[in-house]
Amino acid sequence: MAEGTGTAAGAEGDALAHPGVDAAAGEEFLRAAMEVLLEDAVRGATDVTQKVCEWKEPAELRALLDLELREQGEPGGRLLRRCRDLVRYSVKTGHPRFFNQLFSGLDHHALAGRLLTEALNTSQYTYEIAPVFVLMEDVVLAKLRELVGWSGGDGIFAPGGSMSNMYAMNVARFHRFPHSRQSGNWALPRLALFASRESHYSVLKGAAFLGIGTDNVRLVGTDDRGKMIPEELEKEIERAKAEGAQPFFVCATCGTTVLGAFDPVGAIADVCERHGLWLHVDAAWGGSALLSPKHRHLLAGIERADSVAWNPHKMLTVGLQCSAFLLRDGSGLLQRCHGAGATYLFQTDKFYDVAYDTGDKSPQYLAEQVRRRDGFQLVSEPEFINLCFWFVPPSLRGREGAPDYWQRLGKVAPAIKERMMKKGSMMVSYQPHGARVNFFRQIVTSPAVTRADLDFFLDEIERLGQDL
Amino acid sequence: MAEGTGTAAGAEGDALAHPGVDAAAGEEFLRAAMEVLLEDAVRGATDVTQKVCEWKEPAELRALLDLELREQGEPGGRLLRRCRDLVRYSVKTGHPRFFNQLFSGLDHHALAGRLLTEALNTSQYTYEIAPVFVLMEDVVLAKLRELVGWSGGDGIFAPGGSMSNMYAMNVARFHRFPHSRQSGNWALPRLALFASRESHYSVLKGAAFLGIGTDNVRLVGTDDRGKMIPEELEKEIERAKAEGAQPFFVCATCGTTVLGAFDPVGAIADVCERHGLWLHVDAAWGGSALLSPKHRHLLAGIERADSVAWNPHKMLTVGLQCSAFLLRDGSGLLQRCHGAGATYLFQTDKFYDVAYDTGDKSPQYLAEQVRRRDGFQLVSEPEFINLCFWFVPPSLRGREGAPDYWQRLGKVAPAIKERMMKKGSMMVSYQPHGARVNFFRQIVTSPAVTRADLDFFLDEIERLGQDL
Ligand SMILES: Cc1ncc(COP(=O)(O)O)c(C=O)c1O
Ligand SMILES: Cc1ncc(COP(=O)(O)O)c(C=O)c1O
Repeated sequence: MAEGTGTAAGAEGDALAHPGVDAAAGEEFLRAAMEVLLEDAVRGATDVTQKVCEWKEPAELRALLDLELREQGEPGGRLLRRCRDLVRYSVKTGHPRFFNQLFSGLDHHALAGRLLTEALNTSQYTYEIAPVFVLMEDVVLAKLRELVGWSGGDGIFAPGGSMSNMYAMNVARFHRFPHSRQSGNWALPRLALFASRESHYSVLKGAAFLGIGTDNVRLVGTDDRGKMIPEELEKEIERAKAEGAQPFFVCATCGTTVLGAFDPVGAIADVCERHGLWLHVDAAWGGSALLSPKHRHLLAGIERADSVAWNPHKMLTVGLQCSAFLLRDGSGLLQRCHGAGATYLFQTDKFYDVAYDTGDKSPQYLAEQVRRRDGFQLVSEPEFINLCFWFVPPSLRGREGAPDYWQRLGKVAPAIKERMMKKGSMMVSYQPHGARVNFFRQIVTSPAVTRADLDFFLDEIERLGQDL
Repeated sequence: MAEGTGTAAGAEGDALAHPGVDAAAGEEFLRAAMEVLLEDAVRGATDVTQKVCEWKEPAELRALLDLELREQGEPGGRLLRRCRDLVRYSVKTGHPRFFNQLFSGLDHHALAGRLLTEALNTSQYTYEIAPVFVLMEDVVLAKLRELVGWSGGDGIFAPGGSMSNMYAMNVARFHRFPHSRQSGNWALPRLALFASRESHYSVLKGAAFLGIGTDNVRLVGTDDRGKMIPEELEKEIERAKAEGAQPFFVCATCGTTVLGAFDPVGAIADVCERHGLWLHVDAAWGGSALLSPKHRHLLAGIERADSVAWNPHKMLTVGLQCSAFLLRDGSGLLQRCHGAGATYLFQTDKFYDVAYDTGDKSPQYLAEQVRRRDGFQLVSEPEFINLCFWFVPPSLRGREGAPDYWQRLGKVAPAIKERMMKKGSMMVSYQPHGARVNFFRQIVTSPAVTRADLDFFLDEIERLGQDL
């Protein structure tokens, strides 16, 4: 926390009288930090005359950076120096002489999109909470599937290619044995899956994670260029069957991590068809060749795959972490198997207890109001900052004994929510819980919230629900 | 891709003559986009007099945004309008009247850290590639463990609380049955795990993913406040044993998602001790109460847990997605079980084939040079943009027949790498592969790379390896 931003002061005394953040000071700091970003992390970091890295031994760097986490905040100037040091001692992955990873370079337009995404800080699970991003995801996934050669299908963004490969194994297992979701592997025959010796280690890792075990991954031989030999695959499948295991999944790698080899997808698809196996193509690295009319032949046959992993963060300069998991099935298999959202990396450098302390006062105040006001009813006494309550509109008050009381009350929260969203005045969630019909769950974590916001919150519910 | 940035022009004709990005135009755009960020996504989005959301039906919004992905780029002005629309129609999760999720609010300092992290675009797997972030992660995890009450231990940042809960189950399974990693669940007795009826759905999801199955999750009864009843837990454990299952894992929830209830960790720890079970505390939501001297009693006993999940992105305003998975074990169990890195969310709005096309020319040019230059030797003919080669220093040239030739050659790449890092002149990776000793793997994905950079790359290797 920065000194002098008013945050600490707001937390003492009456935390709800004023916003617990000084927005003007915060914006000033943010503006200065963005100057560091532009000058040091963008211009300097891509300047070929500057260093790719400023090497320090760990102990030396630790001392230089002074990373001790203290109780007290630091002045803005000190924090800005820290921002500069962060950039200075970080490796410049956008530098033209950074060839170290499967990603490199800095695209200014992509970065702009990523910065806005950070500032908007939302989650992707529903249209309600991320209308624009949900539509964008839909369009981008459809485009990627089109490039694979599918007219329909499904997909999701995952936090990395390793995760996409694991999703593939899990969906394939579920597709073959839908009851595995409930019963676990014990109800299944011992499974076997296949990938080349040059495949990414996430195939082994995924097998371990999914309770399949690395011994049940058969690493198929490759030719001298690093490509899987389809005849070897067929032999391994026969061998597994002879040993009493049940083959279910083949992973072809298109663009191996070290040599950049492409497995022959068409011939592998033939083998999979003969044996009724799920074909997954790990195109995390090489998938972007599909954008090139000249090079897409490297992935010929990929349209016959059941699933594809493709990392735009590797060759399309969109920034870490971005992996697409694509599915040919358009019948909702992914949804039936599991629903997992795309996710973010950790980014921070400090601690607050202020946010907590302010948040703590809000439910006390709000619970007090809810107890007092006509038509509001707590679901249970709050122990934490979850405040769960019903709003009972005038038409239902005093009618608790009526046979349709709870059924009608359960319709109140959704109706009020719809009205507040369309008006854009505020947002709060509701849900039923066990035998209890829909109620509101109010959460305050933002130190910026004031008593006026909480009063508005209750007034607005009353206004929106008066005629229900 | 923006029009007039020179990217397209660079890809035609001689792609390596000039950088394939117009840095000045890119920076200008980025600066303008950052103004949108500050004005609209920060100031406007936290202004209580403005709307929390601008509701549109999906079809209407889709038409408004014009999301069609086209072959051709758009002028900067149009892209900026798109940035403004993105913000305008997104939900303002930083708004003081957004109470919809377990996260809300906007902290300017945290956002500054996140923007810099995006700009630096690096991965967390080694000190080499992320020196500052690796040290920071270390310090922050140690602090979180200290707050839990542990003096040692281990941990990792995960893309979300769901993932942290899955890590916990996987580590617990591995700890009890180390061979499960190789052999899968078939070599184990049928497992059973326990969580309260109010626990987060990720416990069930994780059990399905790990091949344990949702039927083997026993949902333990709760009291009227939503807290797990320790006596019920003990009964469920006995029941599972009687039914031939093997209990191994108990998840206590500290801060349930709906009611905000805290399971009594101390009493649950007693039960776990009696039965020799792994105790995981899902403190994704309530963990931040540990920062408050007044409220940390809610988690009393958490120091007795074997592992803890804690989401700073929920109550500490650090931004999505940030979940800490903490482990009491400091013996390297996590490393032995699996090594998974923290990861990012997808963020982009467009496609490039230009990056690919430029990247395509570079290895052709570079492979040509490697073939020509004395002392450079291709490992294999490149099919893709992975260029794998050895540098043979003068002292080894013509000595291929010597018994220690390969052994000595294998030490060349690490020595050169160390020198380039310390000098900061460039970065490239090396690895052994099967029977082949260490070689360099060069990758170009950045359109900014020119022929001069590639010439420098080979010259620099020669310079650094001349005396080896
Ligand atoms: C072929 C292949 N598959 C999967 C992955 C894993 O991708 P991620 O690092 O995004 O988890 C990689 C990463 O290099 C890869 O090269
Ligand atoms: C108690 C609890 N555990 C786990 C999670 C999952 O966290 P995430 O959404 O980061 O995956 C949540 C999310 O709300 C939660 O409330």
